[in-house]
Amino acid sequence: MPGHTPQIRLIQVIESVWPEDKTVESIGIAVAGPLNPNEGLIQKSPNLPEFDEFRIVEYLEDHFNTTVLLGNDANLAALGEWKYGAGRGHQDLIYLTISTGIGSGVISGGKLLLGARGMAAELGHVTIIPDGPICSCGKSGHLEAFASGTAIAKWVQAEIEKGAKSIVAHDQQITAKGIAIAAKKGDALSVAAFKRAGDVLGIAIVNFLHIFNPTIIIFGGGVSKSIDLFLPYIKKAIDQHVFAQGYSEDLVLTTAALGDDAGLLGALALARHAY
Amino acid sequence: MPGHTPQIRLIQVIESVWPEDKTVESIGIAVAGPLNPNEGLIQKSPNLPEFDEFRIVEYLEDHFNTTVLLGNDANLAALGEWKYGAGRGHQDLIYLTISTGIGSGVISGGKLLLGARGMAAELGHVTIIPDGPICSCGKSGHLEAFASGTAIAKWVQAEIEKGAKSIVAHDQQITAKGIAIAAKKGDALSVAAFKRAGDVLGIAIVNFLHIFNPTIIIFGGGVSKSIDLFLPYIKKAIDQHVFAQGYSEDLVLTTAALGDDAGLLGALALARHAY
Repeated sequence: MPGHTPQIRLIQVIESVWPEDKTVESIGIAVAGPLNPNEGLIQKSPNLPEFDEFRIVEYLEDHFNTTVLLGNDANLAALGEWKYGAGRGHQDLIYLTISTGIGSGVISGGKLLLGARGMAAELGHVTIIPDGPICSCGKSGHLEAFASGTAIAKWVQAEIEKGAKSIVAHDQQITAKGIAIAAKKGDALSVAAFKRAGDVLGIAIVNFLHIFNPTIIIFGGGVSKSIDLFLPYIKKAIDQHVFAQGYSEDLVLTTAALGDDAGLLGALALARHAY
Repeated sequence: MPGHTPQIRLIQVIESVWPEDKTVESIGIAVAGPLNPNEGLIQKSPNLPEFDEFRIVEYLEDHFNTTVLLGNDANLAALGEWKYGAGRGHQDLIYLTISTGIGSGVISGGKLLLGARGMAAELGHVTIIPDGPICSCGKSGHLEAFASGTAIAKWVQAEIEKGAKSIVAHDQQITAKGIAIAAKKGDALSVAAFKRAGDVLGIAIVNFLHIFNPTIIIFGGGVSKSIDLFLPYIKKAIDQHVFAQGYSEDLVLTTAALGDDAGLLGALALARHAY
């Protein structure tokens, strides 16, 4: 559909899946990037700048004459895992997706945590070490700056430049995936890279336990496929740093069940809830 | 009422305020220390060990034949400030009480944050600097270990022992209150003590903004009476470390309105809500 604006293409995509024999009661939309779900407003859209400051809910409600609901993709992935995936039956849940960055969503008391402007649950952007490395957001020492796939690769790259030996040194591009493969082969620098990420994730997760007292933490995103490489350090941090046993004794630490569809299924849950 | 068990004294206190001409629909109870509000269970009662592992809700419901609700005192102080105090009209609120320790309560989306076992919102026990000083809870580097009244006094004491000069050096006991008085007179060490606490509180509060996206933060407890001594550092941390303007542009930073009655008024709110 070249030539059309992204707005029109969006309408065409929705029309292409519109059921002929059923009524549409509501539409749920998952969007990456900062948005205000209460106002139905996309604040910033890095990949499709035509959607910057775009009132998507109003636009689609006017066109389709049905209820439209908007959510941040990481929040909706948490909602999807809660309703249909690894988090079913839990009422207090934390979802962390570890890939290029670290996204997150929180279910607290059976409700998606949104905050006043829908900007809550940015767990990747909590400070772990105040004078630590610079995060993708520009601030220093955030969890994401230590434990995202990008951060893991960056650290390995820097260590190699300082003279450390590793079998990933000759990879065309050093990636978290390559480092995970090397770590599983026993490459010391790669093992150390996941230990460093795991130690920092552990500190952060203990904080999240004290803050939210959840019963489950779900890890999604590409890096979570290598959970065996960092989970031991998270468990050790929990053993060492949780200040009352009640926070950890029945805690489930697991991986996501829905893969890349989690956000879409969360949008479905959002739409169903409204309906 | 000497000779009576604390349980019987508690019943006598409630009977002493029982209204003669009105029906009691519910009773709300605020208790310091770890408890499970869902089970109506006091887990640990440091000051009255007879209440350790005591099912207070069941005990009082059996005796008075009315609904009884239980809450942690800091959580209920947050509820009190929200319903009747400085937080009226807000739906996303953080309450921090800074005194001997740091207690806290969170209202998120118009609901008290409790977590699975009612142990959530322990914001004083988040790690700020992993290898920092030991907290009252025994773990290292928590917010409380830097910014409580006890921590402020401890730091000044240690600096004086290392040779620092201060007008509080000859106080019979070095307290946060004495340090605040000295700081207002320009005592350099005392000013530095509040700067240190404020810097760390600032980092923590930025994290809480990213986690909860609240519209108001309320400071209670004895140390909050000296808010002018640390608020500038919190504001500076917010300016420097918040990663999107939406977290801070309409944020209210203020002191509690209800003083020592906040917890009791929160218990009233809890009881009313049930009714």
